[in-house]
Amino acid sequence: MISAEMTRLAHSNSAIRAMFEEGNRLASIYGRDKVYDFSLGNPNFPAPAQVKDAILDVLNEEESTFVHGYMPNSGYPDVCQAIADSLNRRFGTDFTGGNILMTVGAAGGLNVILKTLLNPGDQVLVFAPYFLEYGNYVRNYGGELAVVPPNLPTFQPNLEKFEQMLTPATKAVIINTPNNPTGVIYSEQTLEKLGEILERKQAEFGTSIYVLSDEPYRELAYDGAQVPYVTKYYRNTIVGYSWSKSLSLPGERIGYLVIPSEIDEYRLVFDAAAISNRVLGFVNAPSLMQRVVKRCVDCTTDIGPYDANRRALYDGLTACGFECVFPQGAFYMWMKTPVDDKAFVEAAKAYNILIVPGASFACPGYVRIAYCVAPQTITNSLDGFKKLAEKYGLTK
Amino acid sequence: MISAEMTRLAHSNSAIRAMFEEGNRLASIYGRDKVYDFSLGNPNFPAPAQVKDAILDVLNEEESTFVHGYMPNSGYPDVCQAIADSLNRRFGTDFTGGNILMTVGAAGGLNVILKTLLNPGDQVLVFAPYFLEYGNYVRNYGGELAVVPPNLPTFQPNLEKFEQMLTPATKAVIINTPNNPTGVIYSEQTLEKLGEILERKQAEFGTSIYVLSDEPYRELAYDGAQVPYVTKYYRNTIVGYSWSKSLSLPGERIGYLVIPSEIDEYRLVFDAAAISNRVLGFVNAPSLMQRVVKRCVDCTTDIGPYDANRRALYDGLTACGFECVFPQGAFYMWMKTPVDDKAFVEAAKAYNILIVPGASFACPGYVRIAYCVAPQTITNSLDGFKKLAEKYGLTK
Repeated sequence: MISAEMTRLAHSNSAIRAMFEEGNRLASIYGRDKVYDFSLGNPNFPAPAQVKDAILDVLNEEESTFVHGYMPNSGYPDVCQAIADSLNRRFGTDFTGGNILMTVGAAGGLNVILKTLLNPGDQVLVFAPYFLEYGNYVRNYGGELAVVPPNLPTFQPNLEKFEQMLTPATKAVIINTPNNPTGVIYSEQTLEKLGEILERKQAEFGTSIYVLSDEPYRELAYDGAQVPYVTKYYRNTIVGYSWSKSLSLPGERIGYLVIPSEIDEYRLVFDAAAISNRVLGFVNAPSLMQRVVKRCVDCTTDIGPYDANRRALYDGLTACGFECVFPQGAFYMWMKTPVDDKAFVEAAKAYNILIVPGASFACPGYVRIAYCVAPQTITNSLDGFKKLAEKYGLTK
Repeated sequence: MISAEMTRLAHSNSAIRAMFEEGNRLASIYGRDKVYDFSLGNPNFPAPAQVKDAILDVLNEEESTFVHGYMPNSGYPDVCQAIADSLNRRFGTDFTGGNILMTVGAAGGLNVILKTLLNPGDQVLVFAPYFLEYGNYVRNYGGELAVVPPNLPTFQPNLEKFEQMLTPATKAVIINTPNNPTGVIYSEQTLEKLGEILERKQAEFGTSIYVLSDEPYRELAYDGAQVPYVTKYYRNTIVGYSWSKSLSLPGERIGYLVIPSEIDEYRLVFDAAAISNRVLGFVNAPSLMQRVVKRCVDCTTDIGPYDANRRALYDGLTACGFECVFPQGAFYMWMKTPVDDKAFVEAAKAYNILIVPGASFACPGYVRIAYCVAPQTITNSLDGFKKLAEKYGLTK
């Protein structure tokens, strides 16, 4: 009766809800501090002080009708320009404000650009493991998702399979670096090769294939690792960004798309994306937060606490005998399971540990452990992980 | 190549852009204060002082990770409860927080509920004149818009035609009261009749037909007029609200849906709507603004300035000989044109007056004049309107 698709999603969503309810149930029995919830990518660290300062400055220095009012659907021109300037300073790019479209977070940006690009039946490729929501975004616009199998053990994209899967119906490829759930950063070599393949296939098919680079974790790179800026490696690249993780503002829904002038049909794509922003009901990115990020555009993210968590968790898990991908970025540990990943997730609940099965990222045999948590959550969980390792005969 | 639908919209959008560009061109020649721009529903009055106070209090009293973090996709439970309580106090309703779903403005809310309800081919009815964007929202989800012709001269909905147009494929009816563009408030009698017709037709077809009541102008009612609360007149009613107009926050994208427990399939509709909020990329309504509206939930809107504008414009235009609907609510004057409305809009530009043709609301022969402007814009424009009246032989 109501939307068949949404009815299906409402029913299949029960797994995630069950995890929430399990967390609440465990917390009511054992206390919240005895439940080790690694299931969500919700930053546990407060926004930097500059954010609050910026909000106060905006409210004191700018006009209410301006700060809270409508602006062009693509965003305040001065905010877009400030973002372009910052990207150019940091990555040696050559953007203008006319390449930036402010969005309701990265999820809003991806929906805007998919609505703009896809005709029903168009194919969109993703690399497993991937954030499952991409599939819903693609299907919102009648697109068909095709999943490139994972590339063990590096978890760099599997470019050989990728090349075989490209067809004349391929309209876009979604990549995500630093990666959720693996923590891998795509290397320069990977991006060069990806670009070469796509240029060749575009020429062969006579089509345009857009890379959509979803980059909410760009600022979370450890050990001085550089995250290559994807537009430099492939001309038809559109970047989606969000301040959810870098400024700990996930609830504020503030991000942007970079739509470079060099892409095919730039003018039409940009104009249509601004209209997609409007007709999907976003209308524009939240106005006060646009004014705020302009003032925080060069804020650096303190990755120290995440880095400390990363090392503590990696060391703790490997000492138990677990095999993990050592994360180069983001705040997820991608761990191999000694048994079926869903069975392992169930077994972990016995120790009040909540984690997400790899099957939820189209990559069974692994689990995702989100370490954007309080440090003591990690410390206190390790005893449970040790018992899990013993249970499955991993302990060295 | 890119989305055919978005390409079409990008091209047809040029009319609105042309109006913006014309405004800028005129302003560069004559000065901004000599251009009388009545084209946009962008409140010209600042947000009330309580909004700034609330932002400061939230930042000082609540935790950063809470204020800027993720919450359930349907919104913070305490915010939803505060809104339900406020509605119950004001309208004698019986909602709980579980009936409220926080949305990215009213446009976001309408998209969320249409995504939730529609299967491809479902019919959605609107009453002319109507906000043309409704058509885009409905088509986003494969729905088909059917337009009930206008009911002159009262501009209450044409219920006779409406009844004839209902079919077993009708899934929803969008109403908008106080109305954009006419300023009319739907009477109790209208809503009672509307409810009767729908109950009868639901029984006849064995279907559920949902009324989607889009109410961003609810607080803007003049002369003490009451805006009936639609859920009381028809069981299957879902209300969309936004603080864009009532608190002058259009850029902040903050609103909600009321999904009453009494509607058919309440549990499924509410859960699916929360998921629609997520998969469309909104994820949740902006978090700081949710905290803020909780503290402003009983703020009253100062309609004095709009009311003064309404009277000045109505008196000025009728003195020239124009025929207008005297607005009961919202901030639009709906004026009959002595010639084709598009020709009249063109002629008005010669006097630096920018208005929107009735054709843009599926109701030619009228124009919409948005009076959410500075009072002097009205005063200074009247000479131009007088010359237009003379040009078309209206002057008394």
